[in-house]
Amino acid sequence: MSTKWIYFFGNGQTDGQAGNRNLVGGKGANLAEMVELNIPVPAGFTITTEVCNEFYNNNQQWPAGLREQLQENLVKVEEAMGAKFGDTNNPLLLSVRSGARVSMPGMMDTVLNLGLNDRTVQGLIAKSNNPRFGWDSYRRFIQMYADVVMGVEHQLFEAVLTGMREKRGVESDSDLTAEDLQQVVEQYKAIVVDSAGKMFPDDPMEQLEGAINAVFLSWNNPRAIRYRQMNDIPGDWGTAVNVQAMVFGNMGPNSGTGVAFTRNPSTGENEFYGEYLMDAQGEDVVAGIRTPQPISTLAETKPHIYQQLVDIYKLLESHYKDMQDIEFTIQEDKLYMLQTRSGKRTAAAAVKIAVDMYKEGLIDKKTAVMRVDPKQLDQLLHKTIDPQAKLDVIGRGLPASPGAAVGRLVFFAEDAEEWASREEPVILVRSETSPEDIGGMDAAVGILTSRGGMTSHAAVVARGMGKCCVAGCTDAHINEEKKILTINGHQFQEGDWITLNGTTGEVIAGQVDLIEPELTGDFGTLMGWADEIRRLEIRTNADTPHDSQVARDFGAEGIGLCRTEHMFFDAERINIVRKMILAPDQAGREAALAQLLPMQRSDFIEIFRTMKGLPVTVRLLDPPLHEFLPHHDLQELAQSMSISVERLETIVDDLRELNPMLGHRGVRLGVTYPEIYAMQARAIFEATAELAKEGQTVIPEIMIPLVGVLPELELMKKVCVNVAQQVQEETGIRFEYKIGTMIEVPRACIVADRIAQEADFFSFGTNDLTQMTFGYSRDDAGNFLPIYIEQGVLEKDPFQTLDQLGVGEFVKIGVERGRSTKPQLKIGICGEHGGDPDSIDFFHRVGLDYVSCSPFRVPVARLAAAQAQIRSEQ
Amino acid sequence: MSTKWIYFFGNGQTDGQAGNRNLVGGKGANLAEMVELNIPVPAGFTITTEVCNEFYNNNQQWPAGLREQLQENLVKVEEAMGAKFGDTNNPLLLSVRSGARVSMPGMMDTVLNLGLNDRTVQGLIAKSNNPRFGWDSYRRFIQMYADVVMGVEHQLFEAVLTGMREKRGVESDSDLTAEDLQQVVEQYKAIVVDSAGKMFPDDPMEQLEGAINAVFLSWNNPRAIRYRQMNDIPGDWGTAVNVQAMVFGNMGPNSGTGVAFTRNPSTGENEFYGEYLMDAQGEDVVAGIRTPQPISTLAETKPHIYQQLVDIYKLLESHYKDMQDIEFTIQEDKLYMLQTRSGKRTAAAAVKIAVDMYKEGLIDKKTAVMRVDPKQLDQLLHKTIDPQAKLDVIGRGLPASPGAAVGRLVFFAEDAEEWASREEPVILVRSETSPEDIGGMDAAVGILTSRGGMTSHAAVVARGMGKCCVAGCTDAHINEEKKILTINGHQFQEGDWITLNGTTGEVIAGQVDLIEPELTGDFGTLMGWADEIRRLEIRTNADTPHDSQVARDFGAEGIGLCRTEHMFFDAERINIVRKMILAPDQAGREAALAQLLPMQRSDFIEIFRTMKGLPVTVRLLDPPLHEFLPHHDLQELAQSMSISVERLETIVDDLRELNPMLGHRGVRLGVTYPEIYAMQARAIFEATAELAKEGQTVIPEIMIPLVGVLPELELMKKVCVNVAQQVQEETGIRFEYKIGTMIEVPRACIVADRIAQEADFFSFGTNDLTQMTFGYSRDDAGNFLPIYIEQGVLEKDPFQTLDQLGVGEFVKIGVERGRSTKPQLKIGICGEHGGDPDSIDFFHRVGLDYVSCSPFRVPVARLAAAQAQIRSEQ
Repeated sequence: MSTKWIYFFGNGQTDGQAGNRNLVGGKGANLAEMVELNIPVPAGFTITTEVCNEFYNNNQQWPAGLREQLQENLVKVEEAMGAKFGDTNNPLLLSVRSGARVSMPGMMDTVLNLGLNDRTVQGLIAKSNNPRFGWDSYRRFIQMYADVVMGVEHQLFEAVLTGMREKRGVESDSDLTAEDLQQVVEQYKAIVVDSAGKMFPDDPMEQLEGAINAVFLSWNNPRAIRYRQMNDIPGDWGTAVNVQAMVFGNMGPNSGTGVAFTRNPSTGENEFYGEYLMDAQGEDVVAGIRTPQPISTLAETKPHIYQQLVDIYKLLESHYKDMQDIEFTIQEDKLYMLQTRSGKRTAAAAVKIAVDMYKEGLIDKKTAVMRVDPKQLDQLLHKTIDPQAKLDVIGRGLPASPGAAVGRLVFFAEDAEEWASREEPVILVRSETSPEDIGGMDAAVGILTSRGGMTSHAAVVARGMGKCCVAGCTDAHINEEKKILTINGHQFQEGDWITLNGTTGEVIAGQVDLIEPELTGDFGTLMGWADEIRRLEIRTNADTPHDSQVARDFGAEGIGLCRTEHMFFDAERINIVRKMILAPDQAGREAALAQLLPMQRSDFIEIFRTMKGLPVTVRLLDPPLHEFLPHHDLQELAQSMSISVERLETIVDDLRELNPMLGHRGVRLGVTYPEIYAMQARAIFEATAELAKEGQTVIPEIMIPLVGVLPELELMKKVCVNVAQQVQEETGIRFEYKIGTMIEVPRACIVADRIAQEADFFSFGTNDLTQMTFGYSRDDAGNFLPIYIEQGVLEKDPFQTLDQLGVGEFVKIGVERGRSTKPQLKIGICGEHGGDPDSIDFFHRVGLDYVSCSPFRVPVARLAAAQAQIRSEQ
Repeated sequence: MSTKWIYFFGNGQTDGQAGNRNLVGGKGANLAEMVELNIPVPAGFTITTEVCNEFYNNNQQWPAGLREQLQENLVKVEEAMGAKFGDTNNPLLLSVRSGARVSMPGMMDTVLNLGLNDRTVQGLIAKSNNPRFGWDSYRRFIQMYADVVMGVEHQLFEAVLTGMREKRGVESDSDLTAEDLQQVVEQYKAIVVDSAGKMFPDDPMEQLEGAINAVFLSWNNPRAIRYRQMNDIPGDWGTAVNVQAMVFGNMGPNSGTGVAFTRNPSTGENEFYGEYLMDAQGEDVVAGIRTPQPISTLAETKPHIYQQLVDIYKLLESHYKDMQDIEFTIQEDKLYMLQTRSGKRTAAAAVKIAVDMYKEGLIDKKTAVMRVDPKQLDQLLHKTIDPQAKLDVIGRGLPASPGAAVGRLVFFAEDAEEWASREEPVILVRSETSPEDIGGMDAAVGILTSRGGMTSHAAVVARGMGKCCVAGCTDAHINEEKKILTINGHQFQEGDWITLNGTTGEVIAGQVDLIEPELTGDFGTLMGWADEIRRLEIRTNADTPHDSQVARDFGAEGIGLCRTEHMFFDAERINIVRKMILAPDQAGREAALAQLLPMQRSDFIEIFRTMKGLPVTVRLLDPPLHEFLPHHDLQELAQSMSISVERLETIVDDLRELNPMLGHRGVRLGVTYPEIYAMQARAIFEATAELAKEGQTVIPEIMIPLVGVLPELELMKKVCVNVAQQVQEETGIRFEYKIGTMIEVPRACIVADRIAQEADFFSFGTNDLTQMTFGYSRDDAGNFLPIYIEQGVLEKDPFQTLDQLGVGEFVKIGVERGRSTKPQLKIGICGEHGGDPDSIDFFHRVGLDYVSCSPFRVPVARLAAAQAQIRSEQ
């Protein structure tokens, strides 16, 4: 028996290929599946992926037997459709489409309306009683076929159409008459001869063979190869070719076409939802010239067909166990299903459908959990712009922190605080923010910056606060002195209204209506399931009692990163901090630190109280001291410090660094000024003792940042242990505590086995680790990262989604070496990647114990962690 | 038979321990070795390292049999020395010293003059006929023993001495009389009772046991533990204890003491060289109160002893096959050798001695090559300060580039060039240099900066130029406006004379005489041997024909790093470069680049000509564009560019980066502005074609900097290959070329297997790799690195000597993964570490093909590479 190269589907029959994606590709398997469900599908057949491989292995020749099998299957399609390929009275027209194992949308070629020539077009006209339709179909076929199969440039045909429109004085192709289009066909044929050097093929079989070959060849076009490289699809999978009968919804009043969803894709309501047009093609629905009817009206006009559709959609949903997006055509009162696939939906709909389907017994909990894209959840957690609103979008930046905000423009952090104290909603606009702006950022409803990337200061802080932020809007020009913001020619002054969409990066003039987030019961149900399933613990990055409370409400199980530097920027503290920095000796520093101690202690007391015994990881001071000094107006500070401006300038200048990211910060501060870390440790331990008096046990986790060599950790651990002993003796209260480190310089990963000797836990700081692994400053990368992504040098922004190949390898090495010393070492991650679903999947796979992310990402992380667990079980 | 715990040496006899360092430690093995050579050594014995381990394993108790063996050996020493331990007439005194397998200088404890008490001191006085000597020895013994064995604070004894001096109204201890010292002894004993709570031990045996235990205990003092950690010495090696008879050179006119070298340690001349003092102790020679005699005079005063010394030194030299540094004491006309060890020597002496000893047949070539410390070679290659000169050292910075320079102060690069054009030697002083200063640095004879570390711009460029540089002299305060330099209160104006010592970091007021370097024939001979032996190829980092020629003269076998950015700073070019940077579009940039092309081409033609076919690796543009723009005086530039100052300010501001080291530089420039790399590639290939016309074959190696992801290299390779094809077509000349990459971001090491797919060679850029591995900016690390090294957080400055544990691991990974793709991949290193001997040893071990260093380091690298090869054969 010769090899079977072609599989038929139609009339309720198949050759048994349903679901065999490797052989007949995804599309072919799916069409056969519908046929086996007895759903009416235009008949057709699939040429297997094996033929594609034979074709390439055999000098682009067809394998023996293929031509015969093609003839046999054509006959079966003709019988099923009651029409004949190449017939002048009742012609069968075909579509020829690619179909790989996995969808490669738009990468390969398609030919429609195949089988038309000067004779068969007359049959189509007679059948449809529509000469314009006949000639339009014919000219479209020539255009598509000549482009795809014969390599004739598309633009040549467009020029003919344009010429004809001008000649007729009409604006749209739809205003051209049947006669016009007939002339166009003649001109098209002339172009083909000119350009391809041969006649357009007249013989339908020749057309078919050419189209099949074109699909095979398109498997190896550069676009498809690049797509496969990016998606790890092997080149030897090959593509199948689907040849299927064309059906037409524009053959008169008993024909029509429509699209529908098996549930409401906006709300998730379990209702049949869609629209249709009679006497129309799919493209008419899209073009919007005629207004489609709601699907429900079909129940009145064509009750029989409506009932058939309802039966089909229910069948499909129960078969695929998911909400389906379906396309159908009615040709002369006969219903054909053209496609079914999982339907796209809003986050709210995704949650409701998943929970409903579980309740309906269609799917289990794990499947339900897999059905919601964690990336979408943001939509549910923030205010959003009313989709009905008309928007005057004047510029675009990076979608740095999701949600939407409406407020009045202010240019300085102090102004933001002042206006906000008058209950004015304000949008703070800055070229870039610095830690000095924290108060103003907190007071604002949204933040706009003209520089900086997705992990710039503004973006990171705003996400931490769950506050809308558009960052790096390079079109925004800010004149601070005159308080004028100019974006693409639009000028705004202080107090003008503006709207930001932090989810899209849009900057919108004026006030726009916003929609409040609703966390429905279904949301809570789904999150509960996620919590049952996931292995990863989810913590949060929070520096204030307020953020801690928000994160707890979102389900955080502890604080993975409590940054202490933000606490130093409070108005009443910053001057003490500066006094400490400017002190000429250790005694002077210690005096200032003694003033800070009670403040830091009360910070921790409040945070510990809020977290009610959940673990809290406190990172000791990290940024370079320069960040705490003013950049201008030194006069005032000098006066308050009783030193000369010149002296102050010298100190400020000495502290300035060429590359502060790689400078005197993190544990380097701790080693050179151990009194700073000692004060912070004391504040933490005294707060712990205080809570103990209140009857609450806290086991604080002190985290030393930026460790790269073991002795750094040894020294700082000694400082902390000493302070702990002192506090225990002073208070008479025993408490436990942990001392660990951030793993964020590449060297720390390499020597993690040594560092683990002294560490109770590791927390990967993947922001800095990414910066140093690539050698990218996240504050400066805006000048080349967008170009890198556009040119495919990088697939994704590594500050948003972990670079698994590079940075991820460091994480792996760090985990392996750390646990080679301490098999039970607790390891987490507290960079921005802790809230990114793809990265969370990776962290799950390499065996981390927890991820920590900003409060508003906690639900995203809970869901992503559950999905990672489910994926790893498969 | 019970275990042998003690080994005797003396009177020409040993127990067979000579050379058995593991058992009796280095010192014990060495003393036994001298005894076996029949050299007179004060008799003694060694308690083995095994006893030390027994001591610790057995609750600090002595093992069985030790006490008996101690008695037996004491008797042997008494017999050999003709004196008796504890005897009141003829007392034997002992020294008790530690002795580990390897020398741990100063880490453990020593006790001298052991055996003295109120009775034996009288015997010593009688024997020496010197009461003052007797009492002084006694009080020294109490002080040392009480400190080391009984834990009494040293200061308490000092206070007694001070009190006695005040009471007697004398300035120096040597002015105290025997009676004074006798009183001191009484007071010392009182202090011991007060402080230790018990009497000072009177019994010599009790003294001896205490001292032995103290030496064992000192093996585990914190200082010794730390030293072992730093030097990878296992804690279970233990220390031996050497107990040896004391001999005295101050027992009258027939006693004396001296030190000598078997060859001249300054010049290497083969002559007996040293000095001695009669009736003196070793410390008298050191104290400088009396002037020692040249050793040759001993031939007249004590011909017999002199001849004995000559015989001994010749014996020792032929035994150890190296120049020896010996100490001897004559006690009552009897010669004792106290120590012999390899003598320290100048670089010139080291070279001469090594070559001479080879010629004398004492050592082979490899041994000769191992005898010269590559780090010393610098002394031979640069001008040095006349050791006779009186120096007014006014400040100290980092020894950033070796050699010495005398010149007149200038404050600006332009001034340096102008003064130099008048043949004035100038020293350029800047707070820190930038690429704009290159011309001035080249014109200056030396460079002084107040900021920046060993790898700051000034330091790197100066070393590249072989020019003296003192960097980071933090005491130097520069007032550019008034052209005044202030160092520790000394003020200098423009034109004042100043001298720099780049080898020590000293800044010296006024003009000092310098000595010219002499590359003797012996130097060339030794380098020739090194070249025969080494496997590593030695290249140089050179950007100019002049540097290339210097490096060739020093033996460089190619250029490993030709930086192209320095070529852009030439006065006639910088404005074209700026025009390129400020161009609004690609066309504008290309127009400016077209002007630069002939200049770059002529640069390469000259360098290729100089290198006469040796390989030249050219690195395409690396620094961020901002470095080429002026920092102030934008007015002039704006005018010459015909744009407004505001516009120029905006551009300059847009190009400014927060962390330029991690910014828009290296291949990131190439990807975003491919026209720049295309111009550079064209200049290289056109130069190659030009040389081909001259009959010289050049195979240029184009190096793409800062690659972290494969597509970067792919894209840039395409650009270069295209240009190469064009140039070959245009000129009709075929040529070969290579395209490789620098491996300098940590990610590149991790994905080296991928990058190797497109690379013809790798060159590790260990400067940047060190910065990113540690997260240290070399420009800013000066604020904490010195503290880190002082506190032992880091052993060495990782920018000077490769951090093998961290950065070295990345190099290893990069080599392994790169060669997993291409087993023959050529791999080198072109960071500053390429000239550091320890780092070169590492690079040899991990299998690199070459190292590239600044021209003046080439001889250092040649020697170090040979030594690495010899070490790896052992």
